[in-house]
Amino acid sequence: MDIRFSERADGLKASEIRELLKLTEMPEIISFAGGLPAPELFPVKEMEGIMQKVLERDGKVALQYSSTEGFKPLREVIAKQRMTPAKVNVTADDIAMTTGSQQGIEFSAKVFVNEGDVIICESPSYLGAINAFKAYMPKFVEVPMDEHGMIMEDLEKALKANPNAKMIYTIPDFQNPTGITMSDDRRKKVAELAEEYKIPVIEDNPYGDLIFEGTRHPSIKSFDKEGWVIYLGTFSKNFCPGLRLGWICAAPEILEKYIVVKQGADLQCSTLDQRATALFMETYNLDEHIESIKKVYGKRRTLMLECLDKYFPKEVTHTNPYGGLFTWVKLKEGLDAAEILKEALKENVAYVPGGSFFPNGGHPNYFRLNYSCMPEDKIVEGVKRLGTVLAKYY
Amino acid sequence: MDIRFSERADGLKASEIRELLKLTEMPEIISFAGGLPAPELFPVKEMEGIMQKVLERDGKVALQYSSTEGFKPLREVIAKQRMTPAKVNVTADDIAMTTGSQQGIEFSAKVFVNEGDVIICESPSYLGAINAFKAYMPKFVEVPMDEHGMIMEDLEKALKANPNAKMIYTIPDFQNPTGITMSDDRRKKVAELAEEYKIPVIEDNPYGDLIFEGTRHPSIKSFDKEGWVIYLGTFSKNFCPGLRLGWICAAPEILEKYIVVKQGADLQCSTLDQRATALFMETYNLDEHIESIKKVYGKRRTLMLECLDKYFPKEVTHTNPYGGLFTWVKLKEGLDAAEILKEALKENVAYVPGGSFFPNGGHPNYFRLNYSCMPEDKIVEGVKRLGTVLAKYY
Repeated sequence: MDIRFSERADGLKASEIRELLKLTEMPEIISFAGGLPAPELFPVKEMEGIMQKVLERDGKVALQYSSTEGFKPLREVIAKQRMTPAKVNVTADDIAMTTGSQQGIEFSAKVFVNEGDVIICESPSYLGAINAFKAYMPKFVEVPMDEHGMIMEDLEKALKANPNAKMIYTIPDFQNPTGITMSDDRRKKVAELAEEYKIPVIEDNPYGDLIFEGTRHPSIKSFDKEGWVIYLGTFSKNFCPGLRLGWICAAPEILEKYIVVKQGADLQCSTLDQRATALFMETYNLDEHIESIKKVYGKRRTLMLECLDKYFPKEVTHTNPYGGLFTWVKLKEGLDAAEILKEALKENVAYVPGGSFFPNGGHPNYFRLNYSCMPEDKIVEGVKRLGTVLAKYY
Repeated sequence: MDIRFSERADGLKASEIRELLKLTEMPEIISFAGGLPAPELFPVKEMEGIMQKVLERDGKVALQYSSTEGFKPLREVIAKQRMTPAKVNVTADDIAMTTGSQQGIEFSAKVFVNEGDVIICESPSYLGAINAFKAYMPKFVEVPMDEHGMIMEDLEKALKANPNAKMIYTIPDFQNPTGITMSDDRRKKVAELAEEYKIPVIEDNPYGDLIFEGTRHPSIKSFDKEGWVIYLGTFSKNFCPGLRLGWICAAPEILEKYIVVKQGADLQCSTLDQRATALFMETYNLDEHIESIKKVYGKRRTLMLECLDKYFPKEVTHTNPYGGLFTWVKLKEGLDAAEILKEALKENVAYVPGGSFFPNGGHPNYFRLNYSCMPEDKIVEGVKRLGTVLAKYY
């Protein structure tokens, strides 16, 4: 068969993360590779009652088609309960539901990017976003980060140098893959630059709730005066990823485009899962649930960082996240984390090599570690084994 | 704000159906506009038990991320229970889950169509597909139909005239919007032409199960020898649309591309809804449920066609579907169904004007009627009122 795929599909291939996740499904593997929340924290018992109530009370409508923008009471509790902590004052009308924030990411490229346009992003950036964007055949301009996030001088340079830049994609809170958090003054600056350069900012914020020390940072969207910031939220990290529910919060004329795109893409999200999530948030306190998640992840984070310092060669450095799911490890120049992974897998430990988080390639001497999904004894054992593998290279 | 949307997004606007559905949500409206299944037939009580069992037994995994291609036991029952009646002999590995068949439709354009490529489709065709395809800026070549579906001579002419045709999109069973069914020999011919011209066929088959007289037609896919036919199935018309579950059945090298696209688009379908649907199909007999749907829809279809003959002006013609959800009405040349809709809405009756089902425009003198969603008394009353409105034009 000589199949003529589209140009964009020709360039698409299965992501490393996906192939890796397959590998790491074996129970003997200690996996720091995924970005999975800890399933033991899911409110299973509560969801049983919630599902029963939704079906008993509203079964017929809960199993029927519903509106593309999403179940209004859900959008109302999102506005009230989820956007307020991000310091954004909006109503249900400013919100549309998506299938996880991944769909909001993909739609952003669809809505803004023509072939050859520039997407400005952090260096490194979320692999799943890079892959979704690639289908629209953009150019990527990477902005370097320090411990306070994107460096503003470099962002501004990138904006000046690329008048065909169509959006800035950023994960300001506990970034994937680095765990780095953007300082509040830089958030304000990003919003100002967006206004000045008339460029949309895609604020992808799945981890903002999961702050282990202090209170949630104000979102970039909270500094947005004209409507250039598009906020992507999700229930995947603070509730249940299996329900695939996220949302877009944006100015009306932008949100309208996303909704039309959603209609063509899949009509709507699961009516049942939307109604169940709304009822859960009306019945229980999601923030209390988030507190219990933070306690567990915070402990695991502390333990993992301690173990890194204890078991890794001294020259290996890592970030110090105070929230989210990931830390980012830097090996010395010349080492290739993808090659070393093969050795690590022989010891039944997995991580994600850093190279594919850089859309323009390079940087093979990094890798990403997830600390949210493994129990404490496995964190210790896994880092110990990794340390032994790494020691051979130092 | 001077927002620079992508070229494709510039061209997108909210569909007429969507705007209409908003209008027709008012309870006083007798709506023949939607494509909604009858909610009183949903297995609500059964789903309550199923959800409870899934959460009780497998809550943690049911609320967690899962694989992009979908829950394997679900794909297994689809292969066994849903593809076998379509005369396709496949396994779980030949199937990937999508968010309704709408997502499979959208992905098809993404996988095959470059800007300016030709999509060959029936004239008229499904509005939701036309709108999804438009985002990829194709040209549409419409193939006329008679009462046995696409006319094969015209299809072959279109294939010859358009070497840059990248796919044939067809709804062979009880087509949306016409209700027309493709004859079995034409199905075979489509599969042969696909092979000869090396062009993928997107067989969109949401209504095949809903045949009121006789047994299910063999799918076009069942005549496919080399793998050119991509079959799109869904649980939206034979089970519960609110769960947003559909599937793609295709050759491995094609399916792989769809899965990568799915990963970028939204990672996966709802884990919980997939597990619930699988358990439902393992526990109950979906075909028995379909029998009960067919009985109700068949009666409504018969009643509507009788009413059309009784209450519409004699010169108005309509198709005679023996399955599915729709009949297609032709007014005399010169009339505009979109204009007449305004009169109909004054009488609280709604339908979908036919013009937007023709991707290249024209044909304002048609409209689509749905008979699945209104109880019998409303069908009689609604058609009667429509007849009165139409009488003014004859």
